[in-house]
Amino acid sequence: METIKIVKVGGNVIDNEAALEKFLSQFASLEGLKVLVHGGGKLATKLAQDMQVPVNMVDGRRITDAATLDIISMVYAGKINKNIIAKLQAYNCNAIGFSGADGNTIVSVKRPVKKIDYGYVGDVKKVNTKAMQVLIDNDITPVFCAISHDQNGQLLNTNADTIASEVAIALSRHYKTELIYCFEKNGVLLDVDDDNSVIDYMDSGTYETLKIQGKFAGGMLPKLENCYYALQEGVSRVIIGNPSVITNRDQKFSTLYI
Amino acid sequence: METIKIVKVGGNVIDNEAALEKFLSQFASLEGLKVLVHGGGKLATKLAQDMQVPVNMVDGRRITDAATLDIISMVYAGKINKNIIAKLQAYNCNAIGFSGADGNTIVSVKRPVKKIDYGYVGDVKKVNTKAMQVLIDNDITPVFCAISHDQNGQLLNTNADTIASEVAIALSRHYKTELIYCFEKNGVLLDVDDDNSVIDYMDSGTYETLKIQGKFAGGMLPKLENCYYALQEGVSRVIIGNPSVITNRDQKFSTLYI
Repeated sequence: METIKIVKVGGNVIDNEAALEKFLSQFASLEGLKVLVHGGGKLATKLAQDMQVPVNMVDGRRITDAATLDIISMVYAGKINKNIIAKLQAYNCNAIGFSGADGNTIVSVKRPVKKIDYGYVGDVKKVNTKAMQVLIDNDITPVFCAISHDQNGQLLNTNADTIASEVAIALSRHYKTELIYCFEKNGVLLDVDDDNSVIDYMDSGTYETLKIQGKFAGGMLPKLENCYYALQEGVSRVIIGNPSVITNRDQKFSTLYI
Repeated sequence: METIKIVKVGGNVIDNEAALEKFLSQFASLEGLKVLVHGGGKLATKLAQDMQVPVNMVDGRRITDAATLDIISMVYAGKINKNIIAKLQAYNCNAIGFSGADGNTIVSVKRPVKKIDYGYVGDVKKVNTKAMQVLIDNDITPVFCAISHDQNGQLLNTNADTIASEVAIALSRHYKTELIYCFEKNGVLLDVDDDNSVIDYMDSGTYETLKIQGKFAGGMLPKLENCYYALQEGVSRVIIGNPSVITNRDQKFSTLYI
């Protein structure tokens, strides 16, 4: 089985033009099969403000009414995705942009209303790899924004970390998959206040022990749950590090495995 | 050689939700290989107004400064293209959205400044069909918005009629191509004031004669020049009619050929 790398890059890189440029040049130079998943950054919030559409966040998740969904499809699938594609082409990486509607790739269901009505937010139900595969096997790199669809004509806002893990899981049926989460730290920290306390390797047993000890808090806990779920579902390993980890493995970073 | 239909649908359909829905259901039911190219309609102008970005048109062409290019990439490649893709999926047409940057498909050069500086407007230089072909040959339908790129990281605004004819010409090397322009009339009119004066068939000799007689004015002349250029460059035939011409050939429409 050939190896494929699924790289997720977050909003902090998207929002910083120089950091994005550097990241894309490194991603373009990454050898072998690859897929990119990008977050949205602050541009959607900025456009909402410009258009006087109220911004409503609950626990870091965006409440997505119809006007907000339009903004998200414009910013994520339009401005950000197409500029990333144009830049990757300039670095000789033949890339093609995807929302989850494209190629019927990511089918989700609108999140049921419980305590909170998230609006047009989708939870992933199924990933179809056919369109991705025919491109990947022809040296064309899929680049996903964080939008899915319900197969009934409705686009849905979907968390980019989840898109990355679900795409990686689905591709695991056809390739050996390495899922790489790029974020602002050098890796998973044993002590959240010490940037040098990066955990080099963490298997699922160690993770459970550290979790019980209360070592992981805030946004890191759902991120790690997501990572171990991906590993259980067929992803070979997960790497968490700063954006340059995709090409530079001489630095600190975390490797997660079962 | 297999036949492929390249369908261009304009802004008048994009702007009308019911007309777009009907058109997409017909396009989805169209048998055989196909490609869709869509215009932008009035949404880009509306968003520009909402964002207080000045709208500047010369002879129906949009002067495209950096802020306008952002708007175009958001509206054409984001909102319009992704909603079309989601709707086609609902009609069981497996489609995938393209700008010209995706798959390095449409390479253009920024229009040189002569009397008018059009800004970030691109004239098509080369169409690469590889990404399209691997999808088409796997029953996945490419859907283009009217954006190209310069291969140096710059997106460029490009006329949708031109995108359609250039894509059709490039595909003519691999398929028998039929280029279909859907617009607000039933076809090319011999008398612009008589909607029933549709010219059924027009070869290039007849066209030259009628042109000298001054039968074609306004926007129709460059449209027809574009069509005969496509025919000279390998497109088998061009059809001009109202949107339902794609599935219904019992009505009036115009067929152009060399």
